[in-house]
Amino acid sequence: MSESRASGDRFAVELDPAMLQRHIDELGAIGALAEGGLYRGVYTPAWAEAMALVQGWLEALGLETRRDAVGNLFGRLPGTESQRAVLSGSHIDTVRQGGKYDGALGIHAAIAAIGALKAAYGRPRKHLEVYVICEEEGSRFHASFWGSRALNGRIAPHEADSLQDADGVAIGQAMRERGLDSSAIPSAKRDDVDAFIELHIEQGRILDDEGYDAGVVHTITGLRQLRVRVGGRQDHAGTTPMDLRRDALAGAVEMIARLTGAAEAMGRPAVATVGSIAVAPGATNVVPASCTFTIDTRHSDPGKRLELLAAIERHLQEVAARRGLELEVQQLIEHHPVPMTPAIRDLVEACAQAEGLRYLSMPSGAGHDSQIMAQHVPTGMVFVPSVDGRSHTPAEYTPVERSVPGVRVLARALYRLAY
Amino acid sequence: MSESRASGDRFAVELDPAMLQRHIDELGAIGALAEGGLYRGVYTPAWAEAMALVQGWLEALGLETRRDAVGNLFGRLPGTESQRAVLSGSHIDTVRQGGKYDGALGIHAAIAAIGALKAAYGRPRKHLEVYVICEEEGSRFHASFWGSRALNGRIAPHEADSLQDADGVAIGQAMRERGLDSSAIPSAKRDDVDAFIELHIEQGRILDDEGYDAGVVHTITGLRQLRVRVGGRQDHAGTTPMDLRRDALAGAVEMIARLTGAAEAMGRPAVATVGSIAVAPGATNVVPASCTFTIDTRHSDPGKRLELLAAIERHLQEVAARRGLELEVQQLIEHHPVPMTPAIRDLVEACAQAEGLRYLSMPSGAGHDSQIMAQHVPTGMVFVPSVDGRSHTPAEYTPVERSVPGVRVLARALYRLAY
Repeated sequence: MSESRASGDRFAVELDPAMLQRHIDELGAIGALAEGGLYRGVYTPAWAEAMALVQGWLEALGLETRRDAVGNLFGRLPGTESQRAVLSGSHIDTVRQGGKYDGALGIHAAIAAIGALKAAYGRPRKHLEVYVICEEEGSRFHASFWGSRALNGRIAPHEADSLQDADGVAIGQAMRERGLDSSAIPSAKRDDVDAFIELHIEQGRILDDEGYDAGVVHTITGLRQLRVRVGGRQDHAGTTPMDLRRDALAGAVEMIARLTGAAEAMGRPAVATVGSIAVAPGATNVVPASCTFTIDTRHSDPGKRLELLAAIERHLQEVAARRGLELEVQQLIEHHPVPMTPAIRDLVEACAQAEGLRYLSMPSGAGHDSQIMAQHVPTGMVFVPSVDGRSHTPAEYTPVERSVPGVRVLARALYRLAY
Repeated sequence: MSESRASGDRFAVELDPAMLQRHIDELGAIGALAEGGLYRGVYTPAWAEAMALVQGWLEALGLETRRDAVGNLFGRLPGTESQRAVLSGSHIDTVRQGGKYDGALGIHAAIAAIGALKAAYGRPRKHLEVYVICEEEGSRFHASFWGSRALNGRIAPHEADSLQDADGVAIGQAMRERGLDSSAIPSAKRDDVDAFIELHIEQGRILDDEGYDAGVVHTITGLRQLRVRVGGRQDHAGTTPMDLRRDALAGAVEMIARLTGAAEAMGRPAVATVGSIAVAPGATNVVPASCTFTIDTRHSDPGKRLELLAAIERHLQEVAARRGLELEVQQLIEHHPVPMTPAIRDLVEACAQAEGLRYLSMPSGAGHDSQIMAQHVPTGMVFVPSVDGRSHTPAEYTPVERSVPGVRVLARALYRLAY
């Protein structure tokens, strides 16, 4: 099975959907868990096995492979004219009980695109590289974006010792077990990259629900995560009249209703999510003394994001004051919105148009290596639909025929950048 | 230190507050936990030690002691004319990390009152008995009201084997370890009881906040406990727009806000409490797939109670339907309101008036042995204030001088019933 398309311009490559499917299945078998799903935490045996598999594919395609100090893998189709490089890829690690598509599909897409370009056009002007990023998820260590941070010189010296997994193993030790030397991390920094394009599943349901072929990311959303503790007074649920209570949960539910309402009222792409909540003491017949919950709030527009955060803060304060509750708010994570590089974003859109796709210009609500890359290198992203929006679950799925349009956009953009 | 009061009628007894305080302290030292508070689960070593201590006090007062098949302890001042008995007491077991007053104070009060009556008036016409109830809290086994149920023939044959503690020990086995034979449980049933009066701490803050000396219980509240499961759809918190979500927690918080609002709107003594809540999967960046919470709702008026329950049910259904959420509601506990016997309630009120007290006729928002007793025997309850309404905590407290008025009411009522 192969597929080709020639459009108004001279671009004509043949993608191999069967190879794409085979790569999805073969890599998707590595790290499989008895309870379902995958886990390929960075530097685990499953991770090492996956890296070896992909390196074999790159070599079979005739690409020059190299690993850097943190274990990022590159497969280069060497340029004829320039020592500058154009990169495409994504991360090979997964969350626990993850699926076959998050990250992995961006690697498969880069291999498919660069393989097809090599077959159709031979060597490019600039180096064209598959970039297999060693870590993004933070699922073993709180090391999120480890691979792309290494490439951009953004790993702090203390991290190799201070980041530990659940068993107390430091990431530097885990690296040594894979033959990597954490003292060499600075050598992973590259200054020769002209562009990076990442293809990724959307991880949401917009493209699938609304019938788009692909998404072109204009911004990676800004994210703030908060932990809120509401303190009230523990009382007997039977003997304390409603009017004499300082019920921590009653206050928390009003806060949560208001803050989710604020995001709803603001409209897309504003989101506010309370994903975890706990009360103490947590007995059926005891008025809660305290309630702790998290807030995850995101917006791609910097001004709107601050407006939403201010509204949430105001709701928390108002409810706590009116109900006589204590309030503690702790910031867990803060990422500012990261726009994709306009020139790359425009190029990707132009390629989507050239492919005749129905595409959506959209923010990414999830974080990606591209948000690190874009701060250093011209960067863009292509989304392919996620069936039912499923993500970070064994159920994540994109049929190969719904990936191919995005992969063609990627190939076309890499062609324009490197040839 | 002693205290006496003669009022318009001929009743004049001397209570011994020092003995009352000593009993509070001595019994309150048994079952003390390293982490603070007490635990005297039924049939534990601490429970056996406590029963032996109290039996010693009863014998020192010259009362005839007897234990029944489940371990209820009786201390009788024999009647001169009748084989019928008037009982007063409460339970000796505690919740985990409980205090010195819940249950225990009703035993101390009965001992103080019957001791003072014996000293002042000698033998009564009817038997007058301190009733030390072996179990009420359900804190070791889900055996709530075990002692008063035994006395009224309301323990089902299967319970001795089917009720197990957290270690899998059946209550029948725990009885054997204390020399009790579960096959003899039916023998604990008594048909010779003419009246029962229980003194108890209020376990709430009304008497203390509003400056009453005592409460006279007119009804023990009706209670329904429910477990609610709200089912939505798990989604990525960053990539799923608010308008495409079926967020189980967002639905649950609206339900909780409405159902607590319904109890508030109805006014005292309506209460509705959500004391425990959990979401799954419970991650900061994941829209909850499901949310489980409990509802504890109480009202002493049968009609108002059903009205409140219907309103709650309606809110749950409406929110679930509008948000496209699944709803499962499981009933955990259902107790109908139990009015105290009018003749006893009126007698207790008359005695409170005769003592010149500022008292409140009130429902009990908590469950008590009296709700079992009242279904079989003329029964009434006296409440004494709980400082800050604290209950089921080591912090529960009533100064002895604020217990004495209630104990005097009890003594006066027992005098009218038994002499």
